[in-house]
Amino acid sequence: MHRTKVRIVEEALDANNTIAHANRADFDRAGVSVVNFMSAPGAGKTSLLERVVGNVPGVRVGVLEGDVQGSLDADRLAGLHVPVTQLNTDPSFGGECHLDANMVRSALDAVPLAEIDMLVIENVGNLVCPAEFKVGEDVRVMVSAVTEGEDKPLKYPLMFRTCDLVLVNKIDLLAHLDYDLDRFLYNVDQVHPGVRCMLVSARSGEGIDAWRDWLADVAHARQGAPA
Amino acid sequence: MHRTKVRIVEEALDANNTIAHANRADFDRAGVSVVNFMSAPGAGKTSLLERVVGNVPGVRVGVLEGDVQGSLDADRLAGLHVPVTQLNTDPSFGGECHLDANMVRSALDAVPLAEIDMLVIENVGNLVCPAEFKVGEDVRVMVSAVTEGEDKPLKYPLMFRTCDLVLVNKIDLLAHLDYDLDRFLYNVDQVHPGVRCMLVSARSGEGIDAWRDWLADVAHARQGAPA
Repeated sequence: MHRTKVRIVEEALDANNTIAHANRADFDRAGVSVVNFMSAPGAGKTSLLERVVGNVPGVRVGVLEGDVQGSLDADRLAGLHVPVTQLNTDPSFGGECHLDANMVRSALDAVPLAEIDMLVIENVGNLVCPAEFKVGEDVRVMVSAVTEGEDKPLKYPLMFRTCDLVLVNKIDLLAHLDYDLDRFLYNVDQVHPGVRCMLVSARSGEGIDAWRDWLADVAHARQGAPA
Repeated sequence: MHRTKVRIVEEALDANNTIAHANRADFDRAGVSVVNFMSAPGAGKTSLLERVVGNVPGVRVGVLEGDVQGSLDADRLAGLHVPVTQLNTDPSFGGECHLDANMVRSALDAVPLAEIDMLVIENVGNLVCPAEFKVGEDVRVMVSAVTEGEDKPLKYPLMFRTCDLVLVNKIDLLAHLDYDLDRFLYNVDQVHPGVRCMLVSARSGEGIDAWRDWLADVAHARQGAPA
C-alpha cells in the first residue's frame, strides 16, 4: 500500500513537470520572467507585492493570484493598475492547498503575456505542498515573517531549500517579539547554505528598495540588459 | 478528467472516515477526549500547549505532535513531563501537509491511552488540508494569530467553519499592528456564525485560564462530571 502511494506521487510529479515545461516554453516565447511567490498564510505576500509591482524600473509586472477562495488579494492589487488574474483552487470541498503546473496552465489564456515582462504567481499560503510543484517559474521567492518564529526552516525544509530568495518580513515588529534573528538566519543556512535573505517590512518600507531591485535584476537578466 | 479527480478525493475521504471511526472507538474505550489542534505555521500552537498541558485540573493530558520533519515541538513539550508522541509526515520528498486518520492510527500504539484523559493532536501547520481530514477527534480547536491579518476566515473558510473554538493568539502585539479585531470577528461570524472566539496571548498569559478551563470542560463532559 505504501509502495502504491509513492508511485502515485511520482507519477503526479512527472505529469506536473511535463506541464511546467510547457508553461516555461510559453513564458520564454513571450519573454516573460516568472516568479513563484510563496509563504505561510498571513506572512505578507500581497503587502510586499503592493509595495513593488507598479514601480519596478523598466519592467511591466503582472500578477497571477492563487487562492482557495475569494478575490481579496487580487482586488487589492488591481487597484495598482497592473494586470491581475485570479485563480481559485476551490472546485469542491476544502480546495487545493497549492498551485500546480496544470492550474497555472489553465489560467494562462487570461494572463496578458504580451503586455508584461514579469509574472509574479502568488501561491496559496502554505509552507509544504507549494514547494513540491514547479509551475514553470524562473525563480522562487518565499516570505518568512518574524512573527512565525525562528524554527520554520527546520520544520519546513523543502520550502527554504528550493527558494532563491528569502524575504524576512515584518521586521518592524522585532522589538516587540522574543525572536532571535541570528538563530533564524543560522537555521536557514542549515537547510539552504548561501541563499540570500533580505530583511524587509511591508509596513515601514524598510528593505523594499532592495526587494524591488532584485526583481528588476531577474527581469533584466532575461532581457540581456542587466541594470 | 475533472470527474475522475473528484471521485478519487471522495474515495480517499471515505477511507479516511472509516479509519477515523476506528480511532474514535479506541479513544472511547480508553475514555480519552481528543482535540484536533490546527493553525497556520507559527501561529503559536505549541506555545499555547506549553501554557496548559501540565495543569488542566483533574485531567491528564497527552500530546501527539504532527510535523513534516524533526521533533522540535515534541522536545519542548516533553520538558513539561506529559506524554508526547512524535509523528513525522515526511517519508519522502516534501512530506504530507496534514495528518489523516491513518497516520494517527499508525501512531496509536505509541500513545499511552490508559494513562491519559485527553489527547491533543497538534496537526501540521496549514490552514487548508488539515480541515479536510477527520482523525477521530471530539473537538477541533484552531489558532489564528493577529499577526496573520483579518482576512483569513474568508480565505480559508473550511478551517474556520469546522472548528469548535478559535483561539485568537498574540493579542499582546495588537498595539503594534494595523489589525482590526472587530473586522476579524465579523469575518469569522460570516463563515461560522456563533463559534466561540477566545482572545489569548501565549506570551503574556492573557486568556490562558479560559483556554485551560475550556479544555477541562471538554474532558469533564466525557467523564460525565462537568466542572
